[in-house]
Amino acid sequence: MNKILVLHGPNLNLLGQREVGVYGTLTLEQINDALEAFAGEHDILVETYQSNSEGDLVTKIQNAKGSWDALVINPAAYTHTSIAIRDALAAIDIPVVEVHLSNIYQREEFRHRSLTAPVAIGIISGFGVDSYLLGLRAAFNYLSR
Amino acid sequence: MNKILVLHGPNLNLLGQREVGVYGTLTLEQINDALEAFAGEHDILVETYQSNSEGDLVTKIQNAKGSWDALVINPAAYTHTSIAIRDALAAIDIPVVEVHLSNIYQREEFRHRSLTAPVAIGIISGFGVDSYLLGLRAAFNYLSR
Amino acid sequence: MNKILVLHGPNLNLLGQREVGVYGTLTLEQINDALEAFAGEHDILVETYQSNSEGDLVTKIQNAKGSWDALVINPAAYTHTSIAIRDALAAIDIPVVEVHLSNIYQREEFRHRSLTAPVAIGIISGFGVDSYLLGLRAAFNYLSR
Amino acid sequence: MNKILVLHGPNLNLLGQREVGVYGTLTLEQINDALEAFAGEHDILVETYQSNSEGDLVTKIQNAKGSWDALVINPAAYTHTSIAIRDALAAIDIPVVEVHLSNIYQREEFRHRSLTAPVAIGIISGFGVDSYLLGLRAAFNYLSR
Amino acid sequence: MNKILVLHGPNLNLLGQREVGVYGTLTLEQINDALEAFAGEHDILVETYQSNSEGDLVTKIQNAKGSWDALVINPAAYTHTSIAIRDALAAIDIPVVEVHLSNIYQREEFRHRSLTAPVAIGIISGFGVDSYLLGLRAAFNYLSR
Amino acid sequence: MNKILVLHGPNLNLLGQREVGVYGTLTLEQINDALEAFAGEHDILVETYQSNSEGDLVTKIQNAKGSWDALVINPAAYTHTSIAIRDALAAIDIPVVEVHLSNIYQREEFRHRSLTAPVAIGIISGFGVDSYLLGLRAAFNYLSR
Amino acid sequence: MNKILVLHGPNLNLLGQREVGVYGTLTLEQINDALEAFAGEHDILVETYQSNSEGDLVTKIQNAKGSWDALVINPAAYTHTSIAIRDALAAIDIPVVEVHLSNIYQREEFRHRSLTAPVAIGIISGFGVDSYLLGLRAAFNYLSR
Amino acid sequence: MNKILVLHGPNLNLLGQREVGVYGTLTLEQINDALEAFAGEHDILVETYQSNSEGDLVTKIQNAKGSWDALVINPAAYTHTSIAIRDALAAIDIPVVEVHLSNIYQREEFRHRSLTAPVAIGIISGFGVDSYLLGLRAAFNYLSR
Amino acid sequence: MNKILVLHGPNLNLLGQREVGVYGTLTLEQINDALEAFAGEHDILVETYQSNSEGDLVTKIQNAKGSWDALVINPAAYTHTSIAIRDALAAIDIPVVEVHLSNIYQREEFRHRSLTAPVAIGIISGFGVDSYLLGLRAAFNYLSR
Amino acid sequence: MNKILVLHGPNLNLLGQREVGVYGTLTLEQINDALEAFAGEHDILVETYQSNSEGDLVTKIQNAKGSWDALVINPAAYTHTSIAIRDALAAIDIPVVEVHLSNIYQREEFRHRSLTAPVAIGIISGFGVDSYLLGLRAAFNYLSR
Amino acid sequence: MNKILVLHGPNLNLLGQREVGVYGTLTLEQINDALEAFAGEHDILVETYQSNSEGDLVTKIQNAKGSWDALVINPAAYTHTSIAIRDALAAIDIPVVEVHLSNIYQREEFRHRSLTAPVAIGIISGFGVDSYLLGLRAAFNYLSR
Amino acid sequence: MNKILVLHGPNLNLLGQREVGVYGTLTLEQINDALEAFAGEHDILVETYQSNSEGDLVTKIQNAKGSWDALVINPAAYTHTSIAIRDALAAIDIPVVEVHLSNIYQREEFRHRSLTAPVAIGIISGFGVDSYLLGLRAAFNYLSR
Repeated sequence: MNKILVLHGPNLNLLGQREVGVYGTLTLEQINDALEAFAGEHDILVETYQSNSEGDLVTKIQNAKGSWDALVINPAAYTHTSIAIRDALAAIDIPVVEVHLSNIYQREEFRHRSLTAPVAIGIISGFGVDSYLLGLRAAFNYLSR
Repeated sequence: MNKILVLHGPNLNLLGQREVGVYGTLTLEQINDALEAFAGEHDILVETYQSNSEGDLVTKIQNAKGSWDALVINPAAYTHTSIAIRDALAAIDIPVVEVHLSNIYQREEFRHRSLTAPVAIGIISGFGVDSYLLGLRAAFNYLSR
Repeated sequence: MNKILVLHGPNLNLLGQREVGVYGTLTLEQINDALEAFAGEHDILVETYQSNSEGDLVTKIQNAKGSWDALVINPAAYTHTSIAIRDALAAIDIPVVEVHLSNIYQREEFRHRSLTAPVAIGIISGFGVDSYLLGLRAAFNYLSR
Repeated sequence: MNKILVLHGPNLNLLGQREVGVYGTLTLEQINDALEAFAGEHDILVETYQSNSEGDLVTKIQNAKGSWDALVINPAAYTHTSIAIRDALAAIDIPVVEVHLSNIYQREEFRHRSLTAPVAIGIISGFGVDSYLLGLRAAFNYLSR
Repeated sequence: MNKILVLHGPNLNLLGQREVGVYGTLTLEQINDALEAFAGEHDILVETYQSNSEGDLVTKIQNAKGSWDALVINPAAYTHTSIAIRDALAAIDIPVVEVHLSNIYQREEFRHRSLTAPVAIGIISGFGVDSYLLGLRAAFNYLSR
Repeated sequence: MNKILVLHGPNLNLLGQREVGVYGTLTLEQINDALEAFAGEHDILVETYQSNSEGDLVTKIQNAKGSWDALVINPAAYTHTSIAIRDALAAIDIPVVEVHLSNIYQREEFRHRSLTAPVAIGIISGFGVDSYLLGLRAAFNYLSR
Repeated sequence: MNKILVLHGPNLNLLGQREVGVYGTLTLEQINDALEAFAGEHDILVETYQSNSEGDLVTKIQNAKGSWDALVINPAAYTHTSIAIRDALAAIDIPVVEVHLSNIYQREEFRHRSLTAPVAIGIISGFGVDSYLLGLRAAFNYLSR
Repeated sequence: MNKILVLHGPNLNLLGQREVGVYGTLTLEQINDALEAFAGEHDILVETYQSNSEGDLVTKIQNAKGSWDALVINPAAYTHTSIAIRDALAAIDIPVVEVHLSNIYQREEFRHRSLTAPVAIGIISGFGVDSYLLGLRAAFNYLSR
Repeated sequence: MNKILVLHGPNLNLLGQREVGVYGTLTLEQINDALEAFAGEHDILVETYQSNSEGDLVTKIQNAKGSWDALVINPAAYTHTSIAIRDALAAIDIPVVEVHLSNIYQREEFRHRSLTAPVAIGIISGFGVDSYLLGLRAAFNYLSR
Repeated sequence: MNKILVLHGPNLNLLGQREVGVYGTLTLEQINDALEAFAGEHDILVETYQSNSEGDLVTKIQNAKGSWDALVINPAAYTHTSIAIRDALAAIDIPVVEVHLSNIYQREEFRHRSLTAPVAIGIISGFGVDSYLLGLRAAFNYLSR
Repeated sequence: MNKILVLHGPNLNLLGQREVGVYGTLTLEQINDALEAFAGEHDILVETYQSNSEGDLVTKIQNAKGSWDALVINPAAYTHTSIAIRDALAAIDIPVVEVHLSNIYQREEFRHRSLTAPVAIGIISGFGVDSYLLGLRAAFNYLSR
Repeated sequence: MNKILVLHGPNLNLLGQREVGVYGTLTLEQINDALEAFAGEHDILVETYQSNSEGDLVTKIQNAKGSWDALVINPAAYTHTSIAIRDALAAIDIPVVEVHLSNIYQREEFRHRSLTAPVAIGIISGFGVDSYLLGLRAAFNYLSR
């Protein structure tokens, strides 16, 4: 049974309440439920975790080593500013899939650059909650190969 | 029944023969077979088309209007240079999913910029042939909503 | 009798159907009719040609030499990316007028640069179909001097 | 009867005396005569005004509001440096046509950028005195629609 | 016997007619004759091909694989804009020599960058028709090693 | 009665001890006292909070929603580096006033850019402790309108 | 009694008539009235002056020396283009407060840079007419220290 | 007898009162006296003129044509921002010498660029009042050749 | 007896386990032991502290004031992104030595810039664990002077 | 009989010993022998000279005037940094051919720019020792025309 | 009696023979004669020295300390590339005047930047041999103050 | 016994006389004495060499190969401009330690970039003479491993 950790970056705890025009009305809880439903169907063990703190995320990523087979992460704002998270992702020997709810190429110039993408196996961006489900599937397929 | 057109940009006809270390050993034919298998399972009508010519791709995209419900496109090299393809994608009222075999953020600086991504609903990059299958699924899910 | 060739670049065949808010409801056929009506009134022979292909446009421009007295061209997306069209325009000894339906300075940053304008005698941008008619008139006036 | 104000920016009072190779031998007076001849033929009321002062031009533009139906302006050097003129043009509810005698794309890099073009309906550049006549016609056609 | 394909990019069919001051009076036919004369002397089989179309050139390059031992290419305008040609050149396992009639470092800034040079074994630029002959010789020497 | 939360970013707890030449001798406590004195006079409820942690500030901002009517924030160093704080400020539906003790335009180049300012209603910079008092007043006036 | 001069830059005489969505419906006269009301309450002598001319503003600023105790200035468009006004402000030994009606960080990229801010004691931006009143207060507080 | 016009740009009327550490204690009047003394010794007719207004300076330069044999100008702040003054200097057929009191290379980055220098015969920068005297001498020597 | 605090930034707790090719096989514990051995030999009191959190490091640095005589810090990823740590280091009156295990000039472009180095007395980069020992020695020598 | 001087820039004396993977095992002596063999076959007089000093190379180039008919130069590192060598090459009226052993477009970004190429008739880069032989031939052909 | 050393940078020994259109027909010897004539008239001791070598010039500058009262230098190509000469000029306590024969602002972009100017008291550029004489005079006047 | 060569770049022979505020009062001789004292204590053979000439330093570095076990170099100004020194350092198979007296990150922007650092094992910057001693120790430790 594959074990996949799903990490949510800063402000994602506000989903469903914040900028509904951009992010839709689904809450983070509903996204987590959908991820767990998918996991149940595919015999994956999934854990989800959200934090607003760069340092917490770094530590959480470090601890993934040895405990999890893959990581799905939406680094949110830290995508564009955190070399620390990039270094943590690069340090562990676990495949990483980066996901974004919105299409980062349709947003401000400073969101087009991803510091974390080069250390992920791939990125999925723009499909709302489906980005997470596709990301989980991508990680699962990757492990199955 | 949803009808989805899959377009392959320049040099993708060489898949399986070219830079196997980067792109894997699957041929374009095998990718197309996989796409059709997926389509068969989900009651989608899929057509695939490859061209090395920017103008051909523009015309093919234009003609999609009215005939197809969604477009999955890997613009390959034209991702980074073709405003004409961008304009064609923006001109038709059909959802577009952009896919890439390799992770464009791990490659040369000039491949980090996508001219076409801002007119797609989302992009999927880095999962090899799985990028296509996830992209087809993303388009299908989008149409199902 | 002056002979003037009018070239339409990629995606202009979609006029009237595409982004009507930006480009208006006139079709390319109606624009061509207006150009021919103007030509008839001023004793000009006009031919119009549209292509989505950079290479076709290059060849068409090359062939203008010796057959046509002036060129009116809307290079559309190729305005910003095609050195090949620029070189073709520079290679023939025929006055060139560059026209644009929309005001390129009101659009994305990457549309502010014109690779072709430096080899044209002048540019007209932003007046919709009137850009073409003013451009044809500018070419005609130029030949009349 | 349409009323159109034509504004000439700095140094245009030197036309015909200065850099004849670039700007031709026509004087500003002759250009104004040509504009008035055109206006007479098309039942337009035209006034022309030249100033070397950015502040004067700003005030003149402000006063156009309510008195004139359209503005044709050759901001000359201020095209590239004056946000104040841009703001004045944006503040009045009158269509503006920007014209240039020479083709600004064939000149120094710093003349390729136009601060005023984004607030004009369109620009005409490179046709010598014909730029003014085409510009007046463009404004007239715009008002006639 | 070595087989070497020589590709001429856009507008090179105009040689001898166009900008004679820059490119000299030799026609493409005369260049091809010179290449064949050289080939005859050195027991090389040479074929020459010119196209204005980026897509055609991509396809022609792809087909070189297996049929030709080396490629000499003057990508002309596409040198500076075509990632598709670069990718095609990188995809085939054949040594490539890039040649230019004029010295690209003496021309506009945008011609100083070559997208194709990094995937060639070397470049020769500035010697007129001799660039081709030196390029053919370089390819031949390379194969002889 | 209006409720306004005042947030102090990293290192502001050192005020009065650090770089007295730049920041003056007032301590953070004295600033908070001044804010509360002002609040008392104007029937505002004020709370102040300082943190060195980006994540803590994000969480504190998120929690402001529903509890506070306005936010006055001096993001200090995070002004220039934190997209996470920007996103948090944008996510809550509360007016935000950004304040700085020193004039950020008189300091290093990298302090001229503010990532947070575009999501604030306005910014006040350079007046020492008075920046806070003017900011509190600005927020109060904004709520009173 | 403190004497404070308030300067309004180009196009501010149009307030209340122009782009009401951005600048509100208050006229410059009403702003001046508010400033004088505030001055009356605080025993300040206030004079206001508006000009569209960079040179006039430079001269007005120069003359402030010896006559006024402080300057509040909204340089409007000249904020971003006038080194002459910056030099004038730096040359007089009077504290300067820079104010803006709108939040310059929410506008076009070229409005984010302020040439004048580094020679002011501070800036206040984004609070509409309140920017002026807060600016006058800031100047007054500064003089009172 | 040579006739040389000396123009002083914005804020130079403040010399001797302003930033004495940078510009010294000489007043503009004393500089003008020194210029006239020099002129007297060398049989030159000199006139001096100062203005804070870009438009005034443009007009003054235009009028120099036909009346003066050479121009010595310290464009001060307009050195770096005025294309209008550059165009005026280029339009008249009179040799121009550009002078600066301070060494512009020792000051802010934005003062290193001179828009006017390319249309002057030469520039002299950094010698205080001696810059003017050397500039007048340079113009005189130039005319004497 | 000198008291020196040694701070380790994010991900340094993974040393010896992570990217062994780059960082070697020594663990952080072994580095700390080596530092303490050195301290013992030189009569220095050393304390070491590692954190993944920017805010924690800021607080730890602030508290160093008054308790420690010097600081040796490897800010790791925060070297390139943290203005908050820079401000904390600048705020305390204690000499700071910046150290890096790897040579930051041999790594990605974004690691060449150090935000913290300008507020340190010096930096030592590229010697593995020896960077720490040399850094401790440098701090010790500095205090001994 | 043509006389051609061949100059080798800094570090080329190390050939065959240094970075053999990049530059091959030929020594500079062997390259010089090959050049002389070629010269012997074509009735050319060749002299070769190597120096690590920019100034020496400048002097050597200056002295070529009048003594040599053409120059073949591999400026090595000075290609990218020496305006002095560029000026020397431009000052003598002798055709110059620039050669490089490696393909400079495949190396670090700072090696893509050539300061000397614009004053050469052409450049040859990437063919190892054959670059020299082709360069000598190019110079010879040029003189023979 | 003032002692002034005049240094000529690389390639200036070619004056009168090289690019006569740009630099005139005067030889370096004639310039030196003119400098000595001037020196004779003003009771100055002048020595002139030319070198093509950056290191020689550095050493010559270093030795000036204690032996000469001022330095006039035309660093030629090294103006734009030599930090070593800049450092030498900054290290000696002697006033330095930088001169250029041509107007560096009328030449290539890379000649607009001067690394040495910030450590000179001033620069004189564009007056041919007169630049030297004016420079010597400027140095002399400076010493006389 | 380890043999380590210490190279001093341009202007370092002036130490103790020049800019004492920045570099301290130690002379180069005293630094060399300190290096030799250290060498004596650690059984190292040390030689020191200073040159103002880039070419000399290149040659000295080349000759180190085979004679010395390690190199400690302070390239001074050439750090930022010399690709030739970089290439020489890369060409020899000897470990290199780069040292700087001052902290290059606290100085002008153009001193932040090091062309030589990427080919050194590490750099030490900012500790005055101690930079040399730490650098010698670093080289010694490296050899001892």
